[in-house]
Amino acid sequence: MSGLTYHNIKDIRNIKLHGRMDTGLDVVPLLSNGHGIEVNVSGSQLWADVEADYTDFEPWAAIEINGELISRFMIDKGSHRICLFRGIDSSRITRIKFYRELQAMSDDKTTNIIIKGLETDGEFMAPPSYDYRLEFIGDSINSGEGSYGAVTDEDWTAYCMSYSRTYVNLVGRMLNAECRVISQGGWGVFSGWDNDRRHYIPRFYDRICGLASGGANDKYGAGRSYDFSSWIPDAILINLGTNDCSGFGQPPFTDPETGAVYRLNTNEDGTFASGDVKLITDAAVAFLKTVRKNNPTSHIVWLYGMLGYKLSLPLSEAVNRYITETGDKNVTYIQLPMVNETTVGARLHPGLKCHKLAAEIITDYLKEHFSNQPLS
Amino acid sequence: MSGLTYHNIKDIRNIKLHGRMDTGLDVVPLLSNGHGIEVNVSGSQLWADVEADYTDFEPWAAIEINGELISRFMIDKGSHRICLFRGIDSSRITRIKFYRELQAMSDDKTTNIIIKGLETDGEFMAPPSYDYRLEFIGDSINSGEGSYGAVTDEDWTAYCMSYSRTYVNLVGRMLNAECRVISQGGWGVFSGWDNDRRHYIPRFYDRICGLASGGANDKYGAGRSYDFSSWIPDAILINLGTNDCSGFGQPPFTDPETGAVYRLNTNEDGTFASGDVKLITDAAVAFLKTVRKNNPTSHIVWLYGMLGYKLSLPLSEAVNRYITETGDKNVTYIQLPMVNETTVGARLHPGLKCHKLAAEIITDYLKEHFSNQPLS
Amino acid sequence: MSGLTYHNIKDIRNIKLHGRMDTGLDVVPLLSNGHGIEVNVSGSQLWADVEADYTDFEPWAAIEINGELISRFMIDKGSHRICLFRGIDSSRITRIKFYRELQAMSDDKTTNIIIKGLETDGEFMAPPSYDYRLEFIGDSINSGEGSYGAVTDEDWTAYCMSYSRTYVNLVGRMLNAECRVISQGGWGVFSGWDNDRRHYIPRFYDRICGLASGGANDKYGAGRSYDFSSWIPDAILINLGTNDCSGFGQPPFTDPETGAVYRLNTNEDGTFASGDVKLITDAAVAFLKTVRKNNPTSHIVWLYGMLGYKLSLPLSEAVNRYITETGDKNVTYIQLPMVNETTVGARLHPGLKCHKLAAEIITDYLKEHFSNQPLS
Amino acid sequence: MSGLTYHNIKDIRNIKLHGRMDTGLDVVPLLSNGHGIEVNVSGSQLWADVEADYTDFEPWAAIEINGELISRFMIDKGSHRICLFRGIDSSRITRIKFYRELQAMSDDKTTNIIIKGLETDGEFMAPPSYDYRLEFIGDSINSGEGSYGAVTDEDWTAYCMSYSRTYVNLVGRMLNAECRVISQGGWGVFSGWDNDRRHYIPRFYDRICGLASGGANDKYGAGRSYDFSSWIPDAILINLGTNDCSGFGQPPFTDPETGAVYRLNTNEDGTFASGDVKLITDAAVAFLKTVRKNNPTSHIVWLYGMLGYKLSLPLSEAVNRYITETGDKNVTYIQLPMVNETTVGARLHPGLKCHKLAAEIITDYLKEHFSNQPLS
Repeated sequence: MSGLTYHNIKDIRNIKLHGRMDTGLDVVPLLSNGHGIEVNVSGSQLWADVEADYTDFEPWAAIEINGELISRFMIDKGSHRICLFRGIDSSRITRIKFYRELQAMSDDKTTNIIIKGLETDGEFMAPPSYDYRLEFIGDSINSGEGSYGAVTDEDWTAYCMSYSRTYVNLVGRMLNAECRVISQGGWGVFSGWDNDRRHYIPRFYDRICGLASGGANDKYGAGRSYDFSSWIPDAILINLGTNDCSGFGQPPFTDPETGAVYRLNTNEDGTFASGDVKLITDAAVAFLKTVRKNNPTSHIVWLYGMLGYKLSLPLSEAVNRYITETGDKNVTYIQLPMVNETTVGARLHPGLKCHKLAAEIITDYLKEHFSNQPLS
Repeated sequence: MSGLTYHNIKDIRNIKLHGRMDTGLDVVPLLSNGHGIEVNVSGSQLWADVEADYTDFEPWAAIEINGELISRFMIDKGSHRICLFRGIDSSRITRIKFYRELQAMSDDKTTNIIIKGLETDGEFMAPPSYDYRLEFIGDSINSGEGSYGAVTDEDWTAYCMSYSRTYVNLVGRMLNAECRVISQGGWGVFSGWDNDRRHYIPRFYDRICGLASGGANDKYGAGRSYDFSSWIPDAILINLGTNDCSGFGQPPFTDPETGAVYRLNTNEDGTFASGDVKLITDAAVAFLKTVRKNNPTSHIVWLYGMLGYKLSLPLSEAVNRYITETGDKNVTYIQLPMVNETTVGARLHPGLKCHKLAAEIITDYLKEHFSNQPLS
Repeated sequence: MSGLTYHNIKDIRNIKLHGRMDTGLDVVPLLSNGHGIEVNVSGSQLWADVEADYTDFEPWAAIEINGELISRFMIDKGSHRICLFRGIDSSRITRIKFYRELQAMSDDKTTNIIIKGLETDGEFMAPPSYDYRLEFIGDSINSGEGSYGAVTDEDWTAYCMSYSRTYVNLVGRMLNAECRVISQGGWGVFSGWDNDRRHYIPRFYDRICGLASGGANDKYGAGRSYDFSSWIPDAILINLGTNDCSGFGQPPFTDPETGAVYRLNTNEDGTFASGDVKLITDAAVAFLKTVRKNNPTSHIVWLYGMLGYKLSLPLSEAVNRYITETGDKNVTYIQLPMVNETTVGARLHPGLKCHKLAAEIITDYLKEHFSNQPLS
Repeated sequence: MSGLTYHNIKDIRNIKLHGRMDTGLDVVPLLSNGHGIEVNVSGSQLWADVEADYTDFEPWAAIEINGELISRFMIDKGSHRICLFRGIDSSRITRIKFYRELQAMSDDKTTNIIIKGLETDGEFMAPPSYDYRLEFIGDSINSGEGSYGAVTDEDWTAYCMSYSRTYVNLVGRMLNAECRVISQGGWGVFSGWDNDRRHYIPRFYDRICGLASGGANDKYGAGRSYDFSSWIPDAILINLGTNDCSGFGQPPFTDPETGAVYRLNTNEDGTFASGDVKLITDAAVAFLKTVRKNNPTSHIVWLYGMLGYKLSLPLSEAVNRYITETGDKNVTYIQLPMVNETTVGARLHPGLKCHKLAAEIITDYLKEHFSNQPLS
């Protein structure tokens, strides 16, 4: 392996960093799903100098070579020298994407992957270019829960989650779009699947990686304010509501800190109590306003339906209300097909086929939308 | 062909008639798509004594044998002896469905197919049984426009429309449901694709086959009041809005009778004028009320999206408004995937693949809905 | 319908006739599957003046408009004026193919369809052009048995056979090839499915339509010698052997005319008796020689497997033996995937999916073969 | 991680070892594709104590959890503690398969993976049971070359090969069969793709892993005689001939040791010289005899076609000749569909879709074959 040169990650200019990141660090932290690095590199091989940690949920990562998934693996605690590729004719330029599969773990704030350097016998060329920037905000669906694993798998494991097989990644490929994702299994726009009102995604939207903040990852900037002007999305796709809906079927939740008891009530006829639905739609309207405030030009799409349609009408009403209240019409609502026995993955969540169908629908929509827009 | 016995159609007890019909006639008129007869018959053959007419748009029909499409053809003017099957071992019972492919032709009120009798060497057994009753209300999508024909076909012909390849027929097969459809290409819930305000489907909802009324077909009961208590749907699926949306992009329409000029206005930024959108949503709310008044127990689903999502938010708002105004929650809104270059048929309309995808989504939804309902 | 002009079929110069035919007739007889006419016609409509007959097996026909199947129907005995299209803007040129679905019926030599004339308000333009000429020789698979009908259908009916859904038609579309087919359900290269040694396809290869000869159809030239120089195939695809194989599992057959008893014997271990297999391979070698004698330049492909692989080795041996004996290497052997529960149609025969898969494999092969050939 | 117990791999009784192995070792060597271990284990986690080596071609491995591929990765030189799973409820039994992706590397006889022990907090339960035993013998197709990687990838890398995506693995899943594979990219039944006559698979058929023998791996038994009585296949599937065929288009090969020059000659008309084809068919007949000698009861299937049909007739002739010479009829020949632009993977080799189609055809055939056999 003579001829390999070590490059501190921060010294490499021709590199594309994926995901919101604190740019003031000496390392590249992968705190969330889809966070990663991408390079076009000459040379016969490329290795990454990586450090990882976790307590309960081990981080997983994936490697794409020239746009195809080649490798997917857990990274154990400690330092690792990970081969991103080797054995390629050094006269070629190889496109490598190395990214985190596992979502930011709000339940394990020690989980992380840190890239410190890259080693190669080649050179870093101009990084890949993308036609669009897309931000995806969501829950377990965006976190790819069930996109790996047997349909009989029941445990909430790290391995069953992914970025690689989600519609996020698939839309990105189909549109040649750079994608970022903020998502957390079990969280909603108003409260979590179990009525835990601390588990709403909007809470952390203005942080770099708020879901991983408040613990060991703060040293990597997880809790810092995010500079929205640093990366302006062409479209923002919010897929929330599935866990809010779940709350109606769950017992009350007692906040362990405050003792407050939270529930969402179902009427005797099985319909949802209007006042409780309004909590969710109010939260959705408020979140749309927050997203717009921080992203004045982005097209906003609310997505819903892959795990059931029960909040479809309230969520579309929220989008309508947002439009009425603000006059902002640069927003829409797209319903996605519900998972079925052919498309289901592990843990009764969408499998790869369900993600593919969603990706096609989203891509068709965005293609048409972008083709009708003046070039920016 | 010795051994064949002629049965007047009205003397056959073991027969299932499909579609709204005037039951006081001596014949079975097929005035609209999906109208037809279905029998379980022993014997080696079955022939239909049929009369047809048209001026501009010739009627088409199809034959399904044991649940599979076998034949599809135009029926010319005049009397015909049509073979529904022959050559089958007479010890078997064969299930035959003979139905009209072409929508009710509001533009040609002479178009019809009349069944006067059946000839067989066998006997009519108990007719087929269905698990559900579904009513589909819609436009050219429900009329199967483009479900036959080359993608390059541009003319509005009778042959390019069908019942056989629509999601209506496909949902019916997947759910073992008896389906009825009321649809007309170019019509909307408020006005037609060209802003013609006479072309709204609700206008004829309480007639047996109002779209064919006002002309030669009135002698077959086309214009008579429909008795909603005669057939109570488990679900009513309304797929309207696509032509209303089209109006925004069309020139004003001048009513040839009144001279009134109708348009739907687009704002300078390309969005639709709120007041004009409200005309459509008001019409949708009103139609939901009409449908509910006539069908107190049916689950109502508003479908939309196969030819574009632009009115998705207003239509879901209309459903929400209907719920708020009436307190009736037995209604929902399902968005269907937009046609794309893989799924398109003739005349830029949904092809068979697009109908199949829609049918799967609708079937998944209804299966879940019905499984959660107490048995009626 | 003013403006329609009647053209005797023989007076139309711009017409493509499909299938082997006696050119000395005043009419166009459709004696076999795939026999038909094809025109490019301007005008708003086209009608065919047709006469048909049958005793036991009624003829079926199909209409393709601009390359897509639009209509498929039985034709009853007698004279008919059949609409091939109407309602199209008369400024367009419409491509129409009207062809017979049902195989030549060796069991009902009265079955036929005769085209006497065409009526249109337009003109016949230059007929469609094709890139290749392909001749397909086979049995029930080529006759499309089971390509229509429910998987539960058991009777040997005319409706369950087709040209439209066979791999023959599908290969033709994919390669833009003019296809002719000589096929008969139950027949083999040596003997029929039931050991009837009169039922071997080579018997009639040099007749125009020998399978329909010896009866009423001789007046349409069915039994006349075929002039092989009149239409030189680029490739000839022989799909025979399936019924020969079946004979090993059937009881002996007694020739009703000669009293001779024929059987194919199975060894105690279930394998086929070598001497009886040799009867089949000898017949295959002889047939290859016959085909080559009549078609000196055509590439010959022996196809086999869609209903089982049991004679795969003997048939490929026959092809090898033919090459050894003649030195002719312009011949190959392609095995096609056996039908399975996903691809099966009616009567345990290949369904549309099975034909599609076969068509893709054949098309891939021929594309590569033709691309390696010098242009003729 | 308290509670983990280390088990020397040789002390674990409830374990299934995959692939031919020297059973007299203290470790489990994974010298070839598909070699691996499989366990049913209770407990929350399982770790493998692994050592690996290579000079040019790094080994790759994969993990299946409950029958689904979860992870796939390169293993670097040295000792590793690899997590096979963690985070699962310890009350469950988890089925784990950990296997080598990369073929035995005849070009790098240092390449290997050695499993020394397993660590778990659970217990090893009865190992999984299989319904059949299948042995697959082949070349780059069986080695999964091109089953990973972009269609534009051109280098012969370790990452582009797999066991996980080959038809071998897919047939195994569909039939619940234990599969073993002996394969080497570029090798034939007579000589290699470049006419190298040392590169014929039969050379090493009677060794445990002869392709990896003659170097560092001999200490793991690679070169030792294989005891055919230790594992009796129900079927043996030989997919060879593709590289022999390639030789006809390649320049002569000079044996670097002997100086002998080898070529396969093409006639002026592009056909293959008969004498040279006979070298290949003689080798195929001889290999069939060898395989039969060592496996008296196994059904033998010669597979061919995924990369072209040019030797289809000679190879089927070889099978026929083998039958004639030996009287052994427990052998057949199955042609598999050639890769096309829809099914191609990297390096112009079969992609996943091509392997899936082959797997379905093989599975259909074996299902029927086994269903007709008396239970052993």
